[in-house]
Amino acid sequence: MYLRYLEDLDTRGQRTASSDELAQLCGTTPAQVRKDLSFFGSFGKRGLGYPVHELTAHLREILGLEREWRVIIIGAGKIGAALANYRGFLQRGFRIAGVYDKSPEKIGHAWGEAIVRDIANLEQDLTEAETLIAVLAIPADDAQLIVDRIVGAGIRAILNFAPTKITVPAHVSLKSVNMAMELEGLSFALTHAMANSGAA
Amino acid sequence: MYLRYLEDLDTRGQRTASSDELAQLCGTTPAQVRKDLSFFGSFGKRGLGYPVHELTAHLREILGLEREWRVIIIGAGKIGAALANYRGFLQRGFRIAGVYDKSPEKIGHAWGEAIVRDIANLEQDLTEAETLIAVLAIPADDAQLIVDRIVGAGIRAILNFAPTKITVPAHVSLKSVNMAMELEGLSFALTHAMANSGAA
Repeated sequence: MYLRYLEDLDTRGQRTASSDELAQLCGTTPAQVRKDLSFFGSFGKRGLGYPVHELTAHLREILGLEREWRVIIIGAGKIGAALANYRGFLQRGFRIAGVYDKSPEKIGHAWGEAIVRDIANLEQDLTEAETLIAVLAIPADDAQLIVDRIVGAGIRAILNFAPTKITVPAHVSLKSVNMAMELEGLSFALTHAMANSGAA
Repeated sequence: MYLRYLEDLDTRGQRTASSDELAQLCGTTPAQVRKDLSFFGSFGKRGLGYPVHELTAHLREILGLEREWRVIIIGAGKIGAALANYRGFLQRGFRIAGVYDKSPEKIGHAWGEAIVRDIANLEQDLTEAETLIAVLAIPADDAQLIVDRIVGAGIRAILNFAPTKITVPAHVSLKSVNMAMELEGLSFALTHAMANSGAA
């Protein structure tokens, strides 16, 4: 989040930012800003604020964003399409290197800069260019089988949208996004807000 | 997560589940299971395990899932489409009551059971049936303006997919999903795994 706002300030040519200013942008306190940013080295100077450009570059480096990452998307359904066309990915250095599906009706179609390929080609494709990140946008039933395959083919990090639990070996990073669970967090909050206000 | 697995066991007719079994399913420890579930009352009996059906019903009630929630989607783009067609929502009691867009090319098209409506109708529609949850799937530029409008029209909980910071009054719940940030979490993990293994 700090990186988001620092890049914004950097683009607009602002040279320094105080912890007060960053706190206001990020919706937190100046003390929290100083604490958070102190993890990344001694950047702020009392009375001078943080050097915007240097701190931006440093955060990008820490996040591994100073290189391009090839990303494959497994599953050419609606979530896959939304992700393949998400401009934010390319802006952050994530390039969609391929989209894979098993459905003959989808294979061969152009998706942005990528063409949907037969998932049968996956292992061969991955030997040709180092690709470490996969986005999984397939139904729950197939998920673990596919995960085992892509991990076997060298994938080291998975962003999972399949609504099921998947397991990966220790050397593979996994993040899961579950749309229904996000909504459940809201229904929980609403239910309790209504109970507390007596409107339930 | 507990609810996911308990519903599964319940569907298969299993009557009780031990903390060992739940721990294995959820990838945690039996002690953590007992601690987590103790928040919801004294359900487990030593040596007997947890009553699957009762605990499932209780968790659904706590999460506010024992009723139907009307949900509107703002933005008939690819993310909106993926969400409108997501079967997981209906299974959890979230019914897509409407999809809104401002683009004349999208208004009037059928999306699953909903028809894309002109966002100009939003305020009027929301007076006709209580709708408390909105999913925001629009570009960053328009986001805050739309948020102010839907909050003014009575929305009390927002799931935000717009890649920007939005602010809401204290009585409104907000969750944000940022696809690029999820990937950055993975590139961070990969960068540090590679640095530690000397392969950077």
